[in-house]
Amino acid sequence: MHVVVPFAAIDPKTRLASVLSSAERSTLARAMLADVLTAVVEAGAEPTVVSTAPLDPATLSLEAPVRDAVSVTVDDRPLTEAVNARLPASRDDETTAVVMSDLALATPDTLAALFAHDAAVTIAPGRSGGTNALVVSHPEFRVDYHGTSYLDHCEIARDIDASLETVDSFRLSTDIDEPTDLVEVLIHGDEADRAPACLRGLGFDLETRDGRVGVSRLEETTRE
Amino acid sequence: MHVVVPFAAIDPKTRLASVLSSAERSTLARAMLADVLTAVVEAGAEPTVVSTAPLDPATLSLEAPVRDAVSVTVDDRPLTEAVNARLPASRDDETTAVVMSDLALATPDTLAALFAHDAAVTIAPGRSGGTNALVVSHPEFRVDYHGTSYLDHCEIARDIDASLETVDSFRLSTDIDEPTDLVEVLIHGDEADRAPACLRGLGFDLETRDGRVGVSRLEETTRE
Repeated sequence: MHVVVPFAAIDPKTRLASVLSSAERSTLARAMLADVLTAVVEAGAEPTVVSTAPLDPATLSLEAPVRDAVSVTVDDRPLTEAVNARLPASRDDETTAVVMSDLALATPDTLAALFAHDAAVTIAPGRSGGTNALVVSHPEFRVDYHGTSYLDHCEIARDIDASLETVDSFRLSTDIDEPTDLVEVLIHGDEADRAPACLRGLGFDLETRDGRVGVSRLEETTRE
Repeated sequence: MHVVVPFAAIDPKTRLASVLSSAERSTLARAMLADVLTAVVEAGAEPTVVSTAPLDPATLSLEAPVRDAVSVTVDDRPLTEAVNARLPASRDDETTAVVMSDLALATPDTLAALFAHDAAVTIAPGRSGGTNALVVSHPEFRVDYHGTSYLDHCEIARDIDASLETVDSFRLSTDIDEPTDLVEVLIHGDEADRAPACLRGLGFDLETRDGRVGVSRLEETTRE
């Protein structure tokens, strides 16, 4: 299966600006992208990074078999337009998946289960009504990522009489947007993945205060 | 399967106090409890509500077949103690599940899939390292709900050499604790369930502002 992985290459993850510098956010975004690409390839699919700016795959530190399977294309249009340009346009076109690059908890198993659905449209919702991943075989389906995109995508599928399935996955529902999301990377991220290692390298660790779990960060002065 | 459903009957859901009065929080907590009990029974299991104070099941507006399957017991000890008192104590004891009463998105299917696991300990993690549901057959396993209980429960299972599985479910990961969680009830809650109807009856609706989805509430004066 062909998988589109949109990537905002310039000043990514602005909602993490309260805890990470611009350079650190870029490093984390690339670590998550590399983890997602690795999981997609290990799930047996072929990913294309659709990047808003030029991106050299060699800078992502991918293992050789993954690096060979990844292609990169630049498209500086808004997300919705860039994705719609790559969805199936006729019954003869290959089924296409769209997987967000910040799904730090995605595993080969969760993605393989997503790709195995054979509905005309399959959606993995994110928290707060987002659409974190979807699989499209219907040639009339188009995305609209503004607002409550999960509900909008369900309505669009109904409008074109496309069969629709919703995937129930905590891992795929977890996109890393805000400081509280970093907790999930540290708790559920695979030790071999880049994003948890990136966060720990930046001094982040779990912290329990008043019975609630958050992240703490070592002061700059105590790190290298 | 026997299912323990702990319920805080007195001043529940205090983290929703910024958007709901004490009486409204109690109404919502009971609506979610009734939805969870219905899903547990429809998943083929027998629930016992372990309530911190006396609770008349007749006040939960349960359908007849569900009402007949539910039992209520009062235990005013802290959550960890009340649950541990009801876990299997020997190999002869029945496998027991613990399902939190605020899993408003739990469905019969997601719970049946959870109950079908045959590991010694199966955990459905919540966000921020919580433990939203678990199934225990190992007689030495005990819970500890303080702090990052998901990681603690994984460690406890390893310490007693119990086989461990983690369930990947967005629905079971979603407990309703904070105002932002209400969005999930309105988006993913079944129209036939009590909790979405309760929230809509209180004037809540989805609202998209600056591209992000939240909830808004009609002013008191415009409601009955």
